[in-house]
Amino acid sequence: MNKISGNAVVGQSGGPTSAINATLAGVISGCLEAGIDKIYGMKNGIEGLLGEELFDLRDCFDAPDCKKLSLLSLTPAAALGSCRKKLKDDETAAKMYEIFEKYDISYFFYIGGNDSMDAVARLTEYAKAHPELRKMHFIGVPKTIDNDLVMTDHTPGFGSAAKYIACAMQEVMRDCGVYKTKAVTIVEIMGRDAGWLTASAGLTKAITGVGPALIYLPECAFSEEKFLADLKNEFENGEHPYVVVAVSEGIRHADGSYAAEAAMSGAVDSFGHKYLSGTGKYLENLVREKIGCKVRSVEVNILQRCAGHLLSKTDIYESIMVGRAATGLAFSGESGKMAAYVRRGEGKNYCCDVEGMDVTLIANAIKKVPREFINDDENGITDKCVEYLMPLIAGECEIPYKNGIPCHFEF
Amino acid sequence: MNKISGNAVVGQSGGPTSAINATLAGVISGCLEAGIDKIYGMKNGIEGLLGEELFDLRDCFDAPDCKKLSLLSLTPAAALGSCRKKLKDDETAAKMYEIFEKYDISYFFYIGGNDSMDAVARLTEYAKAHPELRKMHFIGVPKTIDNDLVMTDHTPGFGSAAKYIACAMQEVMRDCGVYKTKAVTIVEIMGRDAGWLTASAGLTKAITGVGPALIYLPECAFSEEKFLADLKNEFENGEHPYVVVAVSEGIRHADGSYAAEAAMSGAVDSFGHKYLSGTGKYLENLVREKIGCKVRSVEVNILQRCAGHLLSKTDIYESIMVGRAATGLAFSGESGKMAAYVRRGEGKNYCCDVEGMDVTLIANAIKKVPREFINDDENGITDKCVEYLMPLIAGECEIPYKNGIPCHFEF
Repeated sequence: MNKISGNAVVGQSGGPTSAINATLAGVISGCLEAGIDKIYGMKNGIEGLLGEELFDLRDCFDAPDCKKLSLLSLTPAAALGSCRKKLKDDETAAKMYEIFEKYDISYFFYIGGNDSMDAVARLTEYAKAHPELRKMHFIGVPKTIDNDLVMTDHTPGFGSAAKYIACAMQEVMRDCGVYKTKAVTIVEIMGRDAGWLTASAGLTKAITGVGPALIYLPECAFSEEKFLADLKNEFENGEHPYVVVAVSEGIRHADGSYAAEAAMSGAVDSFGHKYLSGTGKYLENLVREKIGCKVRSVEVNILQRCAGHLLSKTDIYESIMVGRAATGLAFSGESGKMAAYVRRGEGKNYCCDVEGMDVTLIANAIKKVPREFINDDENGITDKCVEYLMPLIAGECEIPYKNGIPCHFEF
Repeated sequence: MNKISGNAVVGQSGGPTSAINATLAGVISGCLEAGIDKIYGMKNGIEGLLGEELFDLRDCFDAPDCKKLSLLSLTPAAALGSCRKKLKDDETAAKMYEIFEKYDISYFFYIGGNDSMDAVARLTEYAKAHPELRKMHFIGVPKTIDNDLVMTDHTPGFGSAAKYIACAMQEVMRDCGVYKTKAVTIVEIMGRDAGWLTASAGLTKAITGVGPALIYLPECAFSEEKFLADLKNEFENGEHPYVVVAVSEGIRHADGSYAAEAAMSGAVDSFGHKYLSGTGKYLENLVREKIGCKVRSVEVNILQRCAGHLLSKTDIYESIMVGRAATGLAFSGESGKMAAYVRRGEGKNYCCDVEGMDVTLIANAIKKVPREFINDDENGITDKCVEYLMPLIAGECEIPYKNGIPCHFEF
C-alpha cells in the first residue's frame, strides 16, 4: 500500500437515490479507518467545491462504525446536496487544483452517474497533461436508480428502487384485482434510455405468480398497433378481467421519437401551451379512444427514487461496501478509476466484489437491457432477467422510526 | 348476551385500503370465538351475495388467533373482492332475505364506506317493515382512507394511508432539497370531498421540522390568485429555494367548480378529446405560466391507498378490534348499527373504544376537516389537527417478506 498523505474530499452528484448516502457512509468510514486527517464534504457536488463550500465530516463522524454513519446509510437522497454541473473546461479543472492545494487534498471521491464519471475522467486527463501539479487520486463511485452504467454489474441505488417497483406493482395488482370489471391500469416507471427499472416490475409475477401482463421497455421500438393487439389478446386469453401494464417513460417508436410526442403535438392547455403529457397518460388516452374500457394511468414519479422506508438490504450493504472499496483504490495509489461491482455466482450463491474500472470507458456509454432479457413478443422479461434482478432486491433493512415516520440523518 | 343462532356472512365493499382485511380478520376471529357454525364470505360484496357466491371462511381459518388470520390482517386491498353496487330497492332486499333463509344466516357484516352503510341502513329499514321475516342483525363496519364518515372518531384504513402520505412527503422533501434551484413541487393527494389525507402531509413538518410549505384542502375555496401570492410569499420569506405544495384532488373554487375544470375546458388531446387533467397537473401548468420557475407535479394516485408495506400499527390493531367489536354488537342482539371509534384521551394517553352508532345517521353524511384544524391563511394545518392525526399513524407492523417483497394472504 502507498503511503497515505493529504486530505480527502467527497461529493454527491445527479439525481437522488435511496443508497447514495450509504455509499457516502462507506467513503467516510474508509477514510476514518485509514486515518485521513481531514475528510471534506463538498456541498452540492463540484459546485460547492468550486465555491469552497467544504466542511470537515470528521466533525460529525468520529469512528468508522459510529451510530451516525449507520443512520446516514439508511437516509435517502444526497445528504451533502447535489448538482447537475458538468466539468467542461481546463480552467475549471485548474481552479479545482488550486483548491486541492489550498486544502491539502490528495483524494477526490465523486459519487454519481454518467456526468460524474465524466468529471472524474476529465480531472484524470488534466492530471496526466499536467504532471507538474500535486499528485491526486480521482475515484468515481457509481450511483443511479437507472442501472445504466457500463462496466459494473449493477449500480448502487438500483436495487432499492427495483424493490420499491416490485412492491408497488404487487400492491397495484391487489388494488386492481378487487373488482370484476374489465379495466386497464398503466404504470409509468422511470428510465428514459434504459428499461432496467421497468423490467423490475416483472419480478412481482416471478415471485408471486401475479404481476403486470405487459411490460414495455425503451430497448424495443414501440408500436401503438402492437400495444392495442397485445391488450386485446390479454382480454381474450389472459387470466384476469383487469390488465396491468408497466411502461418505461422513455418508450420510443422505430423512428426514435418518444411515444408520447405524437399526442402532445395537438394538445394545448387553457393557456394555449402544448400539453406535456407523460407516456402513461398518453397510453391511457389511447386505450380510452381505441378500446373504450375503464382505464387509468399511474406515474410513479419521484416516489420511486428515494423511498428510504423500503430499502434493499443487499443494495445498502453493497453501497457501503463500494464506498469503502473506493477509498481502498485511492489509498493503494489508483486514479481515474470507478469502483465497480463484479458479480460472482448466481442465485443462492450470489455475491459481489468491487474492482476498479477505467473511468474513461464508463463516462459516455449507456448499458441497455440486453435482448436475451426481453421476451420474443417484446412485452415482458425472461427468466434470465429475473435471475439477474432477484438478488438485487433481497433483504430488508431495519429502519428506525420516530412518531410514525422514519428517522433520517441531518447534518 | 342473546343466544347466538344461525350463520354469519361478511363482505367488503368500495375502494381498497391497507386495513380492510384486518377488519375482516377481526370479524372472522369474533365469529370463530363465538362458535358460529358457518362464516360465509361474499365474493365481491353484495354482488356476490346476490349471486350466491358464498364460501365458508372456516375452511381457511380454524382458530381466532391462527397464523393465516394474522397474515390476512397485514394484506392490503379487499381479499374477498369488492363492488360498487348500491342497494336501491326492496326487491333486492327481498332477494337477500331469501338467501339468508336458504343459508340460515342471521348475522350480516358489511365492511365499507358511505354506500355500504347505506346498504346496511336500507336492510335495517326493510327488516322493520317486515317483522314477519327472520330475525337479522345488520352491522356496518367502517372503512375508507378518506376518513370522511361521521359518528366515528376516524376510519379504519385512514391511519395507514396517512402514515404513507407523511412518509412520502418526508421523502419528497429530501428529494427536492438536494438542489439549490428555485423550484415548485406539487403533490396531489386523494380526497374529493374531505381533506383529511392531504392534511396528513402536514405531519411531516410537525414531526421533522421540514414539510410542505403550503397545503390546500377542499374545505376551503381555492383561488388561483391566492395560490400564486402564497407561492411568491414562500419564495421571498420561506426557508428553502424549493417549495413543496400538498393539494387535495378535490379543491374547488368558491362557486363549487373543481379547480382543474377551468383548464380542461380548452384542452384537447390529439384525438380531439377533452384532456382529463388532474389537479396537480393543472397547478403545475399554472405555475409554469405565471411564475416560470422549475415546476413538477406528483400524483400519488392508487399507491397511497393500499401500501401494505407501510402500515400504521395503531390502524391495523384498531381495525382488527373494530371487526371483533362488530361481532360483539351483533351477538348481543344489535342491528342497524355501525361499529364506530370513540377516542378516549389525547397525546400519550390516546386510546380508542368501539361503540355501536345508528347507521342511518352515517349513511349519507360527510365528515369534513373542521375549521379549527385549518390555519387562518387556509394553506396549512393547525396544532390541533396535528394532535388529532399523530396517534393514528403511530407504530409499525412487522411485515413478513419473501424474495424481497411482502407476503400476502391468498384464498
